[in-house]
Amino acid sequence: MDPKTAYDELAKLTREAALLGSVGELLEWDQHSVMPPAGAGHRSDQISLLAGMRHKRFTDPRVGELLSALEGSRLSLGDTPEAADIKELRCAYDKAVKLPGRLVEELAKAASLAQEEWVAARRESDFSKFLPWLEKILKLTREKAKAYGLPGEPYDALLDDFEPGAKSAEVSAVFSALREDLIKLLDKVRGSSRQPDASAVEGDFDPVVQKLFAESVIGAMGFDFDSGRLDTTAHPFCVGIGAGDTRILTRYNPKRLPNGLLAAMHEAGHALYEMGLDKQNRFGLPSAEAVSLGIHESQSRIWENQVGRSRAFWEHFFPQAQRLFRSSLGKVKLDDFYGAINEVKPSYIRVEANEAYYNLHILLRFELERALLSGDLKPAEVPVEWNTRFKKYFGVAVDKDSNGCLQDVHWAAGLIGYFPTYTLGNLYAAQFFAKANSEMPDLAKKISSGDLFGLRGWLKERIHRHGKRYRAGVLCHRVTGGPLSHKPLIEYMSAKYGEIYGF
Amino acid sequence: MDPKTAYDELAKLTREAALLGSVGELLEWDQHSVMPPAGAGHRSDQISLLAGMRHKRFTDPRVGELLSALEGSRLSLGDTPEAADIKELRCAYDKAVKLPGRLVEELAKAASLAQEEWVAARRESDFSKFLPWLEKILKLTREKAKAYGLPGEPYDALLDDFEPGAKSAEVSAVFSALREDLIKLLDKVRGSSRQPDASAVEGDFDPVVQKLFAESVIGAMGFDFDSGRLDTTAHPFCVGIGAGDTRILTRYNPKRLPNGLLAAMHEAGHALYEMGLDKQNRFGLPSAEAVSLGIHESQSRIWENQVGRSRAFWEHFFPQAQRLFRSSLGKVKLDDFYGAINEVKPSYIRVEANEAYYNLHILLRFELERALLSGDLKPAEVPVEWNTRFKKYFGVAVDKDSNGCLQDVHWAAGLIGYFPTYTLGNLYAAQFFAKANSEMPDLAKKISSGDLFGLRGWLKERIHRHGKRYRAGVLCHRVTGGPLSHKPLIEYMSAKYGEIYGF
Repeated sequence: MDPKTAYDELAKLTREAALLGSVGELLEWDQHSVMPPAGAGHRSDQISLLAGMRHKRFTDPRVGELLSALEGSRLSLGDTPEAADIKELRCAYDKAVKLPGRLVEELAKAASLAQEEWVAARRESDFSKFLPWLEKILKLTREKAKAYGLPGEPYDALLDDFEPGAKSAEVSAVFSALREDLIKLLDKVRGSSRQPDASAVEGDFDPVVQKLFAESVIGAMGFDFDSGRLDTTAHPFCVGIGAGDTRILTRYNPKRLPNGLLAAMHEAGHALYEMGLDKQNRFGLPSAEAVSLGIHESQSRIWENQVGRSRAFWEHFFPQAQRLFRSSLGKVKLDDFYGAINEVKPSYIRVEANEAYYNLHILLRFELERALLSGDLKPAEVPVEWNTRFKKYFGVAVDKDSNGCLQDVHWAAGLIGYFPTYTLGNLYAAQFFAKANSEMPDLAKKISSGDLFGLRGWLKERIHRHGKRYRAGVLCHRVTGGPLSHKPLIEYMSAKYGEIYGF
Repeated sequence: MDPKTAYDELAKLTREAALLGSVGELLEWDQHSVMPPAGAGHRSDQISLLAGMRHKRFTDPRVGELLSALEGSRLSLGDTPEAADIKELRCAYDKAVKLPGRLVEELAKAASLAQEEWVAARRESDFSKFLPWLEKILKLTREKAKAYGLPGEPYDALLDDFEPGAKSAEVSAVFSALREDLIKLLDKVRGSSRQPDASAVEGDFDPVVQKLFAESVIGAMGFDFDSGRLDTTAHPFCVGIGAGDTRILTRYNPKRLPNGLLAAMHEAGHALYEMGLDKQNRFGLPSAEAVSLGIHESQSRIWENQVGRSRAFWEHFFPQAQRLFRSSLGKVKLDDFYGAINEVKPSYIRVEANEAYYNLHILLRFELERALLSGDLKPAEVPVEWNTRFKKYFGVAVDKDSNGCLQDVHWAAGLIGYFPTYTLGNLYAAQFFAKANSEMPDLAKKISSGDLFGLRGWLKERIHRHGKRYRAGVLCHRVTGGPLSHKPLIEYMSAKYGEIYGF
C-alpha cells in the first residue's frame, strides 16, 4: 500500500476515535458545570458507551495493519509530524490491544466502587475501610503494568500512561536532588524573621467581579473567548474539546482573591496549550496532541506561578484589582500583597499547598507509589510510612489519615503513576521560563506592563505547535538546551523567597 | 428464541442507538446555548459521526431478525408497552432500512447547502435564488417518499415521519373545516368595535427578572429543576436528553413581557412531556417516547395558550408580575393585560402570529406542500400561489417574499411534512383541555389560585406515561372519547375572543 494512502486511512480511523473522545470530554464538561443533578445516571450510561466505542475503534486490527504498512516507509522517517504520528500511534495501539477487556472493565469497576468507599473512609478518617480497595486497585494495576509488557521496573509502565517514555529511575534522580535542595531552602524560609502577612489577600471579593477580573487576565494571556469559555465548578479543570472549543472551569473563594484567579490562570495555561495545537488540520493525531501530562502541567504552572505569583505581573494587575475590590484592597500595599500570595507554610493538604511545599507532597506520593509497586511497601503500611516521611519533609506530624494518606482521590480512581507529572510540570515550567527570560531579556519588563503575549507566543512557537512531535525529554533539550534538571526550579524559588523572606 | 430473550436483546440494541441520539441532543443543546462560536466546525463533525453511528446501530440486520422473532409472539399481543415497542420499532426499522444511504447523504447535503442559500435569498427577498434548491429538495423528498413504499398519496409518507400513521386526507378534512370556521371567527374579530390595547404588555422588562419570573411559573407547572434547566437562546426549544435531564431554552424581549414567558411555558410543556415519559425504565424504547410531533406540540400549546393566555392564570400571576415589574405594569389593569396578550391581528410572519391566525399560516403551508408533492403545484409557482392564498385567508397582500414564502427554514432544511403538526398540536391541545375541564370542573378555579399541578397530573396520567403505547388517533379516542375535531379549538377561541372583543 502507498504510504500516503495508508496514512490517510489511519488518520481517518484515529480521527473518528478521537471525535468520540472529544464528545466524552464535552459530556464531562457538561456534567461538572451545567448538568441537572438527576441526569447523572443517564450521563454515566452515555459516557461508558462512548468510551467502549472509542476503544473499539482505536483497537480495530486495521489500525495495526496500517501501522505495520507505514513503519519503515518514507513517512516514518525523520522528526516530521507524520513520523511522530506513526511512532506514537504504535505505542498507544500496542498498549491498548495488550490490555485484556476483562482487566479494563475490572479496573473501571473497582475504581468506581473504590471512589465511593474512599469518600466514606476520608470522611471518617478510617484507613482500614479503604485498605481492601487499595489492595484490589494495586493488584489490578500490577496486572495492567505486566500486561503492557514494557521493559524496566513495573512503575515505568504506569508512568508511561501519563508521561510517555519517562523512566522511574530518571525521574527519581531528579526528584531526589530536588528534595534535598528544597528541604534546605525551606529551612531558610522557616528560619527567617521576616514573614509575610497573609491577611493582605483576604477580604470580601464578589465572585461575579472576580470572574470579570479573571476574564480580563486570561484575555491578556491570549485566551480566545471566541474559541473558549470560562465557567464555575467545584474542582477546576480544562477540556480541549476540539478546534475552536476549549473550556476552563475555576472556583472563587469569596474571602481570598488569589485562589480563583490563580486557578483560572492555571487552567488558562492548559487551555493555551490546547488552543496552540494544530487541531484545525491534524485533530485526533498525536502531532496535534499534548506531549504528556508533565508538559501540560508545565504550561499551566508557568502562568499560575512564574507569572501569576510574580512581582512583575502584579505591578500591572494590582492597581486593576484595587479598582475592582476597593474596600478590601484599597489600602493594601503591592509588596504586602505579593508577599501574601507567596507565603510558604507547611500544610497537610496537597491542593492547598504553596508552590514550594507542593513538590514535597508529590515526592512523598511518588516514593510510596513506587515502593507499593515494587512490593517494598505493603498497602497496610501506607499510613505509617506516609506519616514518617511527612514528619521528615514537612517538620509536622500528621494528625489524622484524612489529612494524610486518605486526602487524594487518585489511588481510589486507579491513577497510580499520575502524581509525579505534577512535579515534572513544575520542573519543566521553571526550566522553560528561565530559558524564555534568557532569550527575551525584556520579558519581566513586558509582563510588568501587562504585555503577556510575548511569553504566550514563545510557548506556542517552542512547544504548543509541535504536539507530540517530540517526546518530553527531546523537547526539553530542544527548548532549553539540556535535560530536565531540578536547578531552575530551585534557583527561581531561592530568588523569590530570598527577596520576600530576606535571606 | 424465547420472546423475552429476543425482546431484551432488541431493547439493548435500540437503547444504545438511542443513547447515541441523546448524546446528539446534548451536542445540539450545547451548540445553541454555550458553545464558543469557533467550535462550530468541530461540532458538526461530532454530530454527523454520531448520527451515522446511530443509524448504523439501528439498521443492524439483527434488529430486523429480533423483530421477526417477536412478531406474532405473546409479547406482540394486546396494547402493552412491549407490543407497542415491537410494532413501532418495526415501522421505524423498515423505514430506516428502506432509505438508501446515498439518498440520506444527498438529502443531508442538499439541506445543508439549501439552508445557506435560503438565508441569502430571504435576506434579499429573492425567490429565484432559492428556487433551484427547493426543486432539488422536492425531487429528493419525492424519492424518499417513494422509497418508503407506503400506501396512499406520497405526502402521507412524509407526514408519517413526524406524525406516525396520520393520513393527508384525514388531516385535510379537519383542517378544511377549521379554516372555514376560523375565517368566520376572524371576520367577527375584525368587525368588532372593541379592540385591546397592545401597549398594556409593553414597557421595560429586565431579562434577568424575566428569567426569575419564568422559573417561578414553570416551577408551578411542575418543571423539576433537579432534572432540568432553563437557559437562553436565539430560537426557543426543548431537548429531552434522558432520564433526569430535560432542558429548555427561551429568549426574552426586553420591551414586551409575554413573549419570553409564553415561550418558556411552551417549552416547559414539551419538557413536562419528556419528564413524564418512563425513561428511567424504558429509555430508548418507543414506549418511553413521545407519540408524535403533533401530540408533543399539544403539550406545549396547552400551557402556552389554554393556560398562559387565560384569564384564570393571570388572576394569580399578574399581581406577581406587577410586583416584579412595577414601573411598567404597576398601573396596568388585569383586563387590559389579558386583552393585550390575546390581541388578534394578521401578520406576515408565522412565528409572530397570535394563536388564531397561526393556524391559517399552517393551513396555507400544508396546502402548498401537498400540491407540491402531488405535482399540482410547481416550485416556481409557489410565490404567486402563496400570495393569492394569503390575501384570501388573511385579507392582506404580501409585500415581499421574505414576508411570504421565504420566511421559514423548514423546506430548506428538507422538513416537508412537518408544518401540519403545529396545527395538529393546537387542535389536540384544545380537545384535551376541554376534556380536562369537563373531568375537573374546578380546573379554572385551581388555575386562578396558582395551582397548576392538577392539569399537569392529568396530562401525565392520560398522555405522558404511555409513551408511544397508543398512536395519536387512538390516544385521542381514549382521552377525549372521540376522533380529532376542529370544534374544541373553535369553541375555545370563540368563547375567549367573544369575551374580549364583545361579540
